[in-house]
Formats: sequence, C-alpha cells, structure tokens
Amino acid sequence: MTELDTTLETAPTRYIESRTIRFAYRRLGPAPGTPLVLLQHFSGNIDAWDPAVVNALAADRPVIAFDNAGVGRSSGQTPDNVEAMARDAVDFINALGLSEVDLLGFSLGGCVAQQIASEYGRLVRKLILVGTAPKGGEEHLLAVLQQAFSQTDVPDPRLPLFFTASDASQSSGLAFLKRTKVRKDDRDTDNGNAVTDPQAKALISWCATSDPDHGILRAIRQPVLVVSGSHDTMLPADNAYAMFKQLSNAQLALYPDSGHGALFQHHALFVNQVRAFLDARAMAA
Amino acid sequence: MTELDTTLETAPTRYIESRTIRFAYRRLGPAPGTPLVLLQHFSGNIDAWDPAVVNALAADRPVIAFDNAGVGRSSGQTPDNVEAMARDAVDFINALGLSEVDLLGFSLGGCVAQQIASEYGRLVRKLILVGTAPKGGEEHLLAVLQQAFSQTDVPDPRLPLFFTASDASQSSGLAFLKRTKVRKDDRDTDNGNAVTDPQAKALISWCATSDPDHGILRAIRQPVLVVSGSHDTMLPADNAYAMFKQLSNAQLALYPDSGHGALFQHHALFVNQVRAFLDARAMAA
Repeated sequence: MTELDTTLETAPTRYIESRTIRFAYRRLGPAPGTPLVLLQHFSGNIDAWDPAVVNALAADRPVIAFDNAGVGRSSGQTPDNVEAMARDAVDFINALGLSEVDLLGFSLGGCVAQQIASEYGRLVRKLILVGTAPKGGEEHLLAVLQQAFSQTDVPDPRLPLFFTASDASQSSGLAFLKRTKVRKDDRDTDNGNAVTDPQAKALISWCATSDPDHGILRAIRQPVLVVSGSHDTMLPADNAYAMFKQLSNAQLALYPDSGHGALFQHHALFVNQVRAFLDARAMAA
Repeated sequence: MTELDTTLETAPTRYIESRTIRFAYRRLGPAPGTPLVLLQHFSGNIDAWDPAVVNALAADRPVIAFDNAGVGRSSGQTPDNVEAMARDAVDFINALGLSEVDLLGFSLGGCVAQQIASEYGRLVRKLILVGTAPKGGEEHLLAVLQQAFSQTDVPDPRLPLFFTASDASQSSGLAFLKRTKVRKDDRDTDNGNAVTDPQAKALISWCATSDPDHGILRAIRQPVLVVSGSHDTMLPADNAYAMFKQLSNAQLALYPDSGHGALFQHHALFVNQVRAFLDARAMAA
C-alpha cells in the first residue's frame, strides 16, 4: 500500500465489497497515519471533490474518497435517510479493515458524519464538518435547490450554489470546476434521479426533523472543526455557529465572501486549518 | 535595527516621543516586513502579553508591544474614550515612522484597533480582533468586571476572567501567568486606578454607545481575522460572530472550552492562524 505519488486525478479507482455493497473508492497519500475519509455532498461523486483540497491533505496522511451506496460506481440503492447512509459508510470503513478514522463531511456528507460520530463514536478520532447543518437546523433548503437547478443559463449549478456573486468568488468557482475536470480516464459516473431523489429527501428530512436537546451534537465527544462560508445560501453560517455552540469540543472557522463551496474557494486556508486541526496533539477537553 | 534574537522577556524597553507623549515599547523580530502592533487589554501593560504568542509571531516579522498614553511607563493621561486612545496609538505609530502596520487588538485593544482601522484606514494593512466587541455590542460588562475583581480568593483576576472553569483551561491559565512572570529585570509598571478607571469608562462607553448601521465595521475594508473563546464571559463570542457578519472581508475563528484569554490558552493554534492570515497574499475581496 504505497500510493505516495498518486493524486485524485491519477489514482486508480478501487473496489471493496461489504456484505451487501460493492463500494468504489480512491485511496491517496502515505499508508501510515489515521485515514481521513471524505463524505460527499448531495449529488456528488468521487470526481466532484477538489483536487486542490484532497491532494494537499494527502501530502502527509492517507485520504480516502468513496461513493456511498448507490452513488457513482458503487452498487446498491441510495437510501432516503441519513441514518442508513451512516450505516452504509460504516460498512465501507469496516470493509477496509479500518478501526479508527478521521471524517470530513461536506453538506449532506456533514450530516452523515455527525450521525456516524454520535452513533459509532469509537470509530471516529476527529471530525471536520463543512457547509452543513445540525439535525433540525434548516428548512428552506428545498426552495434553494429547486431555484438553483432551474437556472438553465448557468454552465454548472455549482457556480451559483457554491460561490457568491462576487467576481472573486465566481472566478475561484470556475477554477474549481476546471480542477475537477482534469481527470479524463476512469472518471466516476454522474448521478441521476435514482441518487439525487433519495438524497434530497434525506437532506430535507434531516434538516426538518427536530433533534430534542441536540442529542446528536451532544453525543459527539470528539474534537470537531466546523467550517462555513460567510454567504452560504443553502445551509447558512448560522447553522455552523449553532453547531459550534452545542458541541463540547469544537473550533469554528468562517471564511469571507464565500458560499457553500467555501472549502474549495479558500482551499489553501482550509487545508492549512484542517492539517493543523488533525495534527494537534491535544485539544482542550 | 537587528533584534532577531530578542524575546518579550529579554528585549530592552525603549522609548519614543510624539508631540505630547513619551511611549514605552519593545520591538521584537526581524526588521523587514509589515510591523505587527499589539493593542493591549484593559489594565494590561507590556508584560501582560503572553511570550508564547508574541515571540512566536516575532519569528518572522517585526512585532511591537507598547504602552498607550498613561499606561505602564508611558507618560501622559489615560483617556476615558476609545477615540482618544486610537489617536494616541496613531501618534505612537507615526512617531516610529511607520507608514503601514498590521494591528492585533485584544479586548479594549480590539475596540481601539477597530477605531484606528475605520478612521486611519491607510495606516492599516490587516487587522486581528480578539475577545472584543463592536461599538454598541455589549452592556453587561461592568457587572462582570466588578464581580471578577471582587473575587479576592483567587491569585490573579485573570484566572477566572480569561479562562473557563475546566481543569484544562485553568491549567493553561496558570501556565500563561507563569510565562508572563519570567522577565524579572526592567519589568513594566503595574497600572493603578489612574489607568483602569478611565479605561473602564472607555470600554463601557464603547459597548453601550450605539453605532447606527455599524458605521465603524462597515468602514473597515481591510482583511480582518476575528477570534474569540467559546465561553468568553466578558465579551461573549456572539460579539465576534456579529462583527464577522458586518465586516466586508473577515475570517472568524472560535476556540473550544476557552474564555476571554482564548489566544493565550490556544496559543499554538492562534499563532498558526495569525501567521497564515498575515502571510496570505490575497483574500477574497
């Protein structure tokens, strides 16, 4: 397992089978260290991650990007709830034989990451939650998604959804999209309605279902880094601040002039903060 | 001006005269680069800064700690309003012949830093605001201060004021106090009522006086890093989040299990974030 020279654009897609699912994944970076497992956003596949983020994080730790059940080139059905997505992701982690991982969950992936950390606590060392919301956090999401996908005059829905209207943000959005298209061979499969319909239902249910006394956030005892863009229209930064306040051991990082894709726009800043967070020996307990 | 090997504990205290004030200061770090000027909290002098923060920041940039008018060993009267403190600080910066500086303002120093950045914008390249509040931000401050200074059974009012009640935070508080006491010779003078009375009035007035339409924050066009502790009882983190939302180009960083002295408790994290912030070529505009 020496994949030191591989990148998201060049690493071979591998497959591993759990009892019920054949998962597609890519593993980057050196073998030693706690693996960082990436949990992807609504409608995204492995190639929707930003190589500028993933490759930089893989410079000194193993990083694993994968398709959860039904997504991309993984087999199975995409479930319509976060709890089942969390079970599937844990199946994947177990199938790889990993006993402890760090999780980076973006958007819907951040909901799945919260569920895993609260329900399968011993599996998770540290947690990074980006552009996401607590259970019961947001309810206007469906309207935002419908509006965004109805904008047929934009080249990619991620430009208006992930970036602000400023020149600087749109320009970094185009640069991000360009980076995601470098890989030509062995690209992941785009997702259709069989994936996005249940995912949308899962995300909306998560946001609309109350979690009395913040049971999920309160159950998370791991160190958490919470990240959001200043002008995230899908899951606004208020959600990040609310999560920070309920978590027992969290850092909050909010970025300027940025939307849902703040981690891609400010990739150097984000990578620097994630590395410092993951490398820190001890956080205040 | 080569002071590469000096530290806060070993640097000589220097003096420079403006038209009206003789300012005490210490200058650390290499000569090249934009100087980082530190603006101190209520009642603090030069030796109340944490060497773990100041020396690490001075590893690759000039860092200047000073006593504003009337404070420590500087001459003059401590004014009872933030606007005059800002004028005095600008006098000091001008007296040093500096045309552009970075500012790190902590607590009351953060109010002064906001005032300088909004009123003397061309003097300021980047701004770091720690444990502070916007004008009109907080009104319960006097009660907190009175309660803290009435606790006669604690060895230093900064233990309950700057740190949380957790073992980890109190332990880091003791380590911080120890670091500030290493310097024995040429220590700065402690401040009495002639300093703290007008400073308390200035801080309370700042917090209690409304700033319609956030005129000061809106006038700040520089990149800003806003930092706060999760459980700051003096100027709660809500102030930091509110400042972040009004500033045009700000990052927010909130730290776990920490109070007003979050920058001293999490000094390695803070220094890492400040250096990355000050070194960044371009922030999103």
